[in-house]
Amino acid sequence: MLYSFLGMSADINPKPEQNNENKSEAPSNGVEKPQEKKLSPELTTSEPKKGKLSGDNYVRIRRPYRDIFKTIAPGRFVATAKSNVPQNALGRSYQNIKRFFVGRPLFSHEEPSQRLNKVRALAIFGSDAISSSAYATEASLVVLMAAGNGALHISFFTAIAIAALLSMVAFSYRQTVYAYPHGGGSYNVSRQNLGKLPGLIAAAALLIDYVMTVAVSIAAGTQAIISAGITSGYGNQITAISNSFPPFFNIGVVLSIFFIGLITLGNLRGVRESGTIFAIPTYLFIFGFVAMLGIGLFKSVTGTLHPVVTPAQLATAQPITLWLVLRAFSAGAVAMSGTEAISNGVPVFKKPESKNAATTLTIMATLLGVFFVGISYLSTHMGLVPGKETIISQVAVAVFGNTVFYYIFQIATMGILVIAANTAFADFPRLSSVLAKDKYLPHNFLHRGDRLAFSNGIIFLGSLSALILIIFKGNVDSLIHLYAVGVFLAFSMSDTGMVVHWWRTRGKNWKTSIVINGVDAVLTTSILIIVVITKFAVGAWIIVILIPIVVMIFQFVHWHYENVGKQLKVDPAHLPPMTINQFVLVPIEDINLASLRAIAFARTISKDVVLIHISNDQEETEKLQKKMDAYSPDMKLVVLESPLRVLVRPLTKYINALHSQHPDAFVTIVLPEFIAAHAWERFLHNRTAEQLVRVFKKHPNVAVVLVPYLLEK
Amino acid sequence: MLYSFLGMSADINPKPEQNNENKSEAPSNGVEKPQEKKLSPELTTSEPKKGKLSGDNYVRIRRPYRDIFKTIAPGRFVATAKSNVPQNALGRSYQNIKRFFVGRPLFSHEEPSQRLNKVRALAIFGSDAISSSAYATEASLVVLMAAGNGALHISFFTAIAIAALLSMVAFSYRQTVYAYPHGGGSYNVSRQNLGKLPGLIAAAALLIDYVMTVAVSIAAGTQAIISAGITSGYGNQITAISNSFPPFFNIGVVLSIFFIGLITLGNLRGVRESGTIFAIPTYLFIFGFVAMLGIGLFKSVTGTLHPVVTPAQLATAQPITLWLVLRAFSAGAVAMSGTEAISNGVPVFKKPESKNAATTLTIMATLLGVFFVGISYLSTHMGLVPGKETIISQVAVAVFGNTVFYYIFQIATMGILVIAANTAFADFPRLSSVLAKDKYLPHNFLHRGDRLAFSNGIIFLGSLSALILIIFKGNVDSLIHLYAVGVFLAFSMSDTGMVVHWWRTRGKNWKTSIVINGVDAVLTTSILIIVVITKFAVGAWIIVILIPIVVMIFQFVHWHYENVGKQLKVDPAHLPPMTINQFVLVPIEDINLASLRAIAFARTISKDVVLIHISNDQEETEKLQKKMDAYSPDMKLVVLESPLRVLVRPLTKYINALHSQHPDAFVTIVLPEFIAAHAWERFLHNRTAEQLVRVFKKHPNVAVVLVPYLLEK
Repeated sequence: MLYSFLGMSADINPKPEQNNENKSEAPSNGVEKPQEKKLSPELTTSEPKKGKLSGDNYVRIRRPYRDIFKTIAPGRFVATAKSNVPQNALGRSYQNIKRFFVGRPLFSHEEPSQRLNKVRALAIFGSDAISSSAYATEASLVVLMAAGNGALHISFFTAIAIAALLSMVAFSYRQTVYAYPHGGGSYNVSRQNLGKLPGLIAAAALLIDYVMTVAVSIAAGTQAIISAGITSGYGNQITAISNSFPPFFNIGVVLSIFFIGLITLGNLRGVRESGTIFAIPTYLFIFGFVAMLGIGLFKSVTGTLHPVVTPAQLATAQPITLWLVLRAFSAGAVAMSGTEAISNGVPVFKKPESKNAATTLTIMATLLGVFFVGISYLSTHMGLVPGKETIISQVAVAVFGNTVFYYIFQIATMGILVIAANTAFADFPRLSSVLAKDKYLPHNFLHRGDRLAFSNGIIFLGSLSALILIIFKGNVDSLIHLYAVGVFLAFSMSDTGMVVHWWRTRGKNWKTSIVINGVDAVLTTSILIIVVITKFAVGAWIIVILIPIVVMIFQFVHWHYENVGKQLKVDPAHLPPMTINQFVLVPIEDINLASLRAIAFARTISKDVVLIHISNDQEETEKLQKKMDAYSPDMKLVVLESPLRVLVRPLTKYINALHSQHPDAFVTIVLPEFIAAHAWERFLHNRTAEQLVRVFKKHPNVAVVLVPYLLEK
Repeated sequence: MLYSFLGMSADINPKPEQNNENKSEAPSNGVEKPQEKKLSPELTTSEPKKGKLSGDNYVRIRRPYRDIFKTIAPGRFVATAKSNVPQNALGRSYQNIKRFFVGRPLFSHEEPSQRLNKVRALAIFGSDAISSSAYATEASLVVLMAAGNGALHISFFTAIAIAALLSMVAFSYRQTVYAYPHGGGSYNVSRQNLGKLPGLIAAAALLIDYVMTVAVSIAAGTQAIISAGITSGYGNQITAISNSFPPFFNIGVVLSIFFIGLITLGNLRGVRESGTIFAIPTYLFIFGFVAMLGIGLFKSVTGTLHPVVTPAQLATAQPITLWLVLRAFSAGAVAMSGTEAISNGVPVFKKPESKNAATTLTIMATLLGVFFVGISYLSTHMGLVPGKETIISQVAVAVFGNTVFYYIFQIATMGILVIAANTAFADFPRLSSVLAKDKYLPHNFLHRGDRLAFSNGIIFLGSLSALILIIFKGNVDSLIHLYAVGVFLAFSMSDTGMVVHWWRTRGKNWKTSIVINGVDAVLTTSILIIVVITKFAVGAWIIVILIPIVVMIFQFVHWHYENVGKQLKVDPAHLPPMTINQFVLVPIEDINLASLRAIAFARTISKDVVLIHISNDQEETEKLQKKMDAYSPDMKLVVLESPLRVLVRPLTKYINALHSQHPDAFVTIVLPEFIAAHAWERFLHNRTAEQLVRVFKKHPNVAVVLVPYLLEK
């Protein structure tokens, strides 16, 4: 429908043929619309000329709006990048700063080009898993230390057991990747096969796990740097610097927060760039680790591999028991975190997605298994004992010597660990978005930001993990106890879900598949139980409490949205009234151009306008009445005398009284509002309008309309 | 005009005879109003019964509104005290706390009973002048000290000169009090007789002077307490406590701020109570001072008056020059501050106002003159030297001995000094209110608060003087240099104004009057010049700079209000349009009950409604279009595709584009707004509405209407 622009001067130009032509598109259902006073919502190219319409004002857009909106059909516009330019200079400066760090906004159609190839995908999704080889051995050794130096060799065997388990889990996840090409995270698999609650439990476990991944990886990464510092002889200085920080902060925490900030920024830039930035240290670490294992094995075979610093002699505090071995196993099991990352990210892979994802998964698991067993062997061989310097640093310095290669390797370790957190930054926001789509998390997590990344989830994860690092003072040993519960809970839920999936679908080779996932389900569930029991007292209890809390939050958010959705649902049999029944109240202090404008607005929108004057001066009221008789004789004036000289409260009470008498009436308060040229000029005007807005903010049947009046100069 | 309540169900009951009866009161000027759908702004006593109207719904008010509003005529209501009860519990608690300290709100009609009799008026308006006898002698002596002990006796002669001047000024002001029974402050007298600018200069001088009065009096009052502490032997402890405070604070400043808070509160309670509270120490001081002078004179005659601590022997740094004497005179002249107070407050006196005020003025001036000369005599007689202990304390301890009478007198001194500030608290807000009425200060200073006191002026003065005390670290000697310039400027302006007044009016005895005021004008102007010159370097320059700045602020505020007034003035020859030409835009995300309510609102207020949908999903847009066809087929939908996934900016750009095409059209944006039961639930909903409100806050042709939708539970 094309409405011609015709001002108040009533130059009428009905253009009947064009109106008819357009009526088909937005069918008029008999609601009468007078043609005069119609305003066109279309954007035309011509200057608005009263009483004279340009021929085809649909297709052309008037400059400069041609640059901002493209008209694709009548009433259909596409906003260009220029539409995103802020109105004021401050906003533009902020946008420029943001653009410098985060990059230009990306259009939705730019998305497909952001897919990942295997090399980049390994860096994105693999860094978490592979990097855990940097701290998992040490986690085992810390447990075994309690039984003296003689117990340390057990870590080699727990490493082999974990590597075996890893291959089973990886094999199992390969099946998931094929079965769920649109993203087969534990949440999806559990929800579809086991039901809503198991799905939410898996989701809670994963989200907590992602936060822990960031915290642990970053803390371990800074640990690698500090170890290099100790090796180069700056141990005392590091301690001194650390002590100079205020409580809750030490050099590790400060560095960690800096790295988290860096990763957050990188992720806000979007998916592919993350891959490019982060691929370098990942591959540096992989090649470095391979070199270290190769040289180390060669040296150990030739008998030339010796620790640089003689390992400490430990007191044998307790005997080697099954409990101790199980605890060492649980501690080492953190190596497996991140294995599920790829299954969540299948849709981001280049086509064929599932095949590429499965191949990447196999490569990742192989590297992790080899690295973990290898480092455990070398450390056991030398009888290394964890201390201020990390185990991996002790091995590296023994292999490379105090050479540049050692330092490169430490930096690469730091690099991959800091970047391992990136897996979580890829997954947490994606899972949050899925949960938001299913209405288990706020809408804010649903949408992609400027750079097609889920900005809110990224910022949320960054903040949360920084907070946890501060609370735990960046201590890897404390953090690691909270880890692994979520990992194995997710494995267990996913495998169980896959068993149900195969049973239900019974596709090709379903029997083989069900056996693989079934065995894996039993394994991972058993290990989950072991992990919970052995780590419960030292920190896992926090997670055991946290998961139900997070699930309850999901449920609450869901209940809220469902409840709102139900309340808002339109029932075609009981359509709400087409119009509302309203009082329009115009509180006036005096009759002037601003209040006349408000009155004109009120007169335009309703025939039931009541002017209300709060008075504490009889004379002024009389004057006002006279002015009204002269300028707005059609309006009814209600005078509310307020001998306590208050204004807002009697007015609210009056409106309440009106509501109580007319329960189904809506009250629209129309007020003039001065738009002052300078902020400080606002102090010179009464704040009545702002007060009324605040008072009626939560009133279900009152709207406050501020009719602006521009003060010049 | 009585509009019957008739809901959407269209039960019509026109009641023609009643309509006619009431039409006389708000004349209908031919604007047609259909009777159906009319809502009555009147408050009735009966339950709203659709289609059935109660007989006379004017005179009765429905419970509980009968308690809140009294109907005095159709459309005329008076709000009772109950109308001032806050809506929520928090507000009520705050009101109860305020009421405890400040008292119950007073109705405007309670004002006349707040007039002052002479005894109370002397306490209110006299405390400033009388109390200056507590520090004026010392101010002279501090100057004379530079010429050694031998110069100190000069203070007695300067005191006599000042007392003579005081009697002249008082005599002159008595004439003003009779000539200006409605308040003859320097501002009023100067403005009416000399012109706007002289009036504003006098007003600036007075306002600054009031602030200084508060600061100096309070600082001197705490000095009295500290002197008593020194006499009782706690000097070292006081110094120790003072040093323990953070920078900018010492025991004096902290005590001073406490006293300022107390006075502020007392004044917020309102005029009469201030009189009652403050009369006690004023009269205690007056009687104590009379006793001290009597006993002191007797002792000095009998030769038994000796200082308790032998006065310090001063080095004779400079000779006694005219310059030194003039400086001593200027310093002592601070005694005269507060003399003009009564002339401002004439309307607050009981009838006959002028006579009572003049009598009070005479009593006040007599007391001040006698006290000042007396204390100067006694101090000169003993050769006292100012030090850590005040002169008045030294005299008092010499007269009373270290007895309870000395301490009572010190407390009374502190009392009257702290209360002297009260004069300023009575005058500053009153003068501010007059200036606000004349549009030289913001409206906020115009109105009386809950307790019929000018609350804003009181709070402003309290804050400002506390700030000055902090800046000057509560040091009386530093503060006093800023004083007296304002005092004599006000005297000079007032007297000059009175000369012009007598010349113009030429009433009875005008020749005598003109001589009195003329002589006084010459005197006070001369002394003003002396004060400015002698005190310029030590602080008066601040006031000399400040007065023009304050005058410029007055002028600016005035210019702003005048400018706004001019802009808002209705020109009967060019009345603004009766209605406005508007687009109503309803941005919608989805069709649900909330958006249908917003659409219904929009449909009610305009025929030019455009729904606008910001889309980044083609499918959703199609779904929306279908829902619209079903539920709102009469509405036009504009779709704005936003491939950058931003919402608010393209919408603002679109509105700008519309404005550019239709420059005289107003745009009303109608949005649904969820009213959530709990604050935290708001996080679960998009903040688009709030963003739009913020963006269009300053737009002169856009109003944003948030149509509330109550979410249950």
